[in-house]
Amino acid sequence: MNKPYVLGIDIGGTNTVFGIVDARGTVIASGSIKTKKHEKFADYIDELYQEATKLLVAHDAVGKVAGIGVGAPNANYYTGNIEDAANLQWKGNLPLGAMLEERFGVPVAVTNDANAAAIGEMTYGAARGMKDFIMITLGTGVGSGVVCGGNLIYGCDGLAGELGHVIARRGGRPCGCGRRGCLETYCSATGVVRSALEFLDAQPDISSTMRSIPSDELTSKDVYDAAKAGDEIALNVFKFTGRILGEMLADFAAFTSPEAFILFGGLAKSGKLLMDPLRESFENNLLSFQKGKIKILASELKEADAAVLGASALGWEAKSILNK
Amino acid sequence: MNKPYVLGIDIGGTNTVFGIVDARGTVIASGSIKTKKHEKFADYIDELYQEATKLLVAHDAVGKVAGIGVGAPNANYYTGNIEDAANLQWKGNLPLGAMLEERFGVPVAVTNDANAAAIGEMTYGAARGMKDFIMITLGTGVGSGVVCGGNLIYGCDGLAGELGHVIARRGGRPCGCGRRGCLETYCSATGVVRSALEFLDAQPDISSTMRSIPSDELTSKDVYDAAKAGDEIALNVFKFTGRILGEMLADFAAFTSPEAFILFGGLAKSGKLLMDPLRESFENNLLSFQKGKIKILASELKEADAAVLGASALGWEAKSILNK
Repeated sequence: MNKPYVLGIDIGGTNTVFGIVDARGTVIASGSIKTKKHEKFADYIDELYQEATKLLVAHDAVGKVAGIGVGAPNANYYTGNIEDAANLQWKGNLPLGAMLEERFGVPVAVTNDANAAAIGEMTYGAARGMKDFIMITLGTGVGSGVVCGGNLIYGCDGLAGELGHVIARRGGRPCGCGRRGCLETYCSATGVVRSALEFLDAQPDISSTMRSIPSDELTSKDVYDAAKAGDEIALNVFKFTGRILGEMLADFAAFTSPEAFILFGGLAKSGKLLMDPLRESFENNLLSFQKGKIKILASELKEADAAVLGASALGWEAKSILNK
Repeated sequence: MNKPYVLGIDIGGTNTVFGIVDARGTVIASGSIKTKKHEKFADYIDELYQEATKLLVAHDAVGKVAGIGVGAPNANYYTGNIEDAANLQWKGNLPLGAMLEERFGVPVAVTNDANAAAIGEMTYGAARGMKDFIMITLGTGVGSGVVCGGNLIYGCDGLAGELGHVIARRGGRPCGCGRRGCLETYCSATGVVRSALEFLDAQPDISSTMRSIPSDELTSKDVYDAAKAGDEIALNVFKFTGRILGEMLADFAAFTSPEAFILFGGLAKSGKLLMDPLRESFENNLLSFQKGKIKILASELKEADAAVLGASALGWEAKSILNK
């Protein structure tokens, strides 16, 4: 029996979105629940099962789901567990894959959000047909999914691809991981805000519309809007962000020699403001035999669908966790 | 017909070593020719064919070779070509694999030296049974071979794994690649000499036995000997080298989450002088969930055999280049 659908589930700190997806990457229907609502993980799985089942019933998809793919913070592909996720209220090791498989009775594959995005791009998006590329998600933090020879790199423990925590500036900004100078302290949405606050502080004589916003309320969107309006400091923030990201992507290129980098997330939509300094810095820092050969592309997945689509793509290849 | 041997060829700037190897990794016999001797690449291939054939005849191995594996500078696994190797006298694209296959009449697989070493460790050495590890060769330069999920990472163009050219110090020492601050300007044999000369210059008041050696004659072996004898500056050179290498290996670990790093080459034999500061720096710089989990091991291949063994291991899987 050839089952025509997969179920994609994207677990975020606030919301959990799920959708029924067909083999062409169309999201047939989707729904969501509040991740934060349940104190107990088992209660959360209960509600997720009930709501997703309602969706399957409403779209005549019961018994037609080949597998379930889940993207979740700190989710481990090998074990199916969420392991000590800082952004979720449940601590320790959560047997996410096993519990979902038990409820739904179909194979479940689990990975972290950025890996899910990489699989989504490879299956339905900008990386179709590519065997070697690196997905970079520029959100609150910086995530990554590394694909080599057509395979996602999971590493010996399922935790590979932490490019947001490669050191961009040794001894630099303190990072949530406990170390200093990680890429994500500079080139994420929060990194952009940190840069803006630093630059405003270091150059008190330069006027900026950002000075009218209280520092604890400044967002990366505010910095973007200011830069678009020609604000000198905001423009310099984007130059600085692009320069560091370009330097680091060039280092990453020396590692796996990818055909392309695919950028996803809020910052990736900054257009030329980010892309111009990024591309210039990237080309300047590449090894000579790589110059001019590696593409930097924006994601082709619709933001609203991307997380669910990426997760769902895993569902096609999911194997049973319980019968391992 | 099950052929019991492979031929391994290691092409260096000065010498080319070749050997007949059996399935257990025993080098049955080996020989060598001078790489530098021939102005024309075709003449070099001629002599290599003649000398290797003599060896095969002498050991009753004619017709018993399953494939040929070659490790060479800037050799591209996908094309079988040597591409603009700085350390060889022949310039441009050299169709190494195709020419050898035509002569010997068996499939030939070609890769760069460090990738060959990684395959050698995986097949016969310290990485047996490992699916995720990174080979680091600490020689005149720094080479690397990255293995993920049991596969060597070649990248989209066959040129992945240039970890010696990831930036260790942005804007740092000039590198032969035309850029600045590459890992190999610090953590290679030549990097150690550069550090020693810098440190001697910066601290003229500290006595050192290395001051009696003309600066253009100082070798990494001299620095090693001085450090072993307790020379303060030489000891600091090894601490500095180990610290930078540890920082960089920690970054590489965030990339592919390997089970181990395998170190090979002259510097890797410096023992505790290098390994103590290296391990300390590595652990200090790892992401918290990786601390204490990733091994740093020395190669288990005999130096004399390693290059040929590593190259030969490729021979078992070699596929025809000419009939592609």
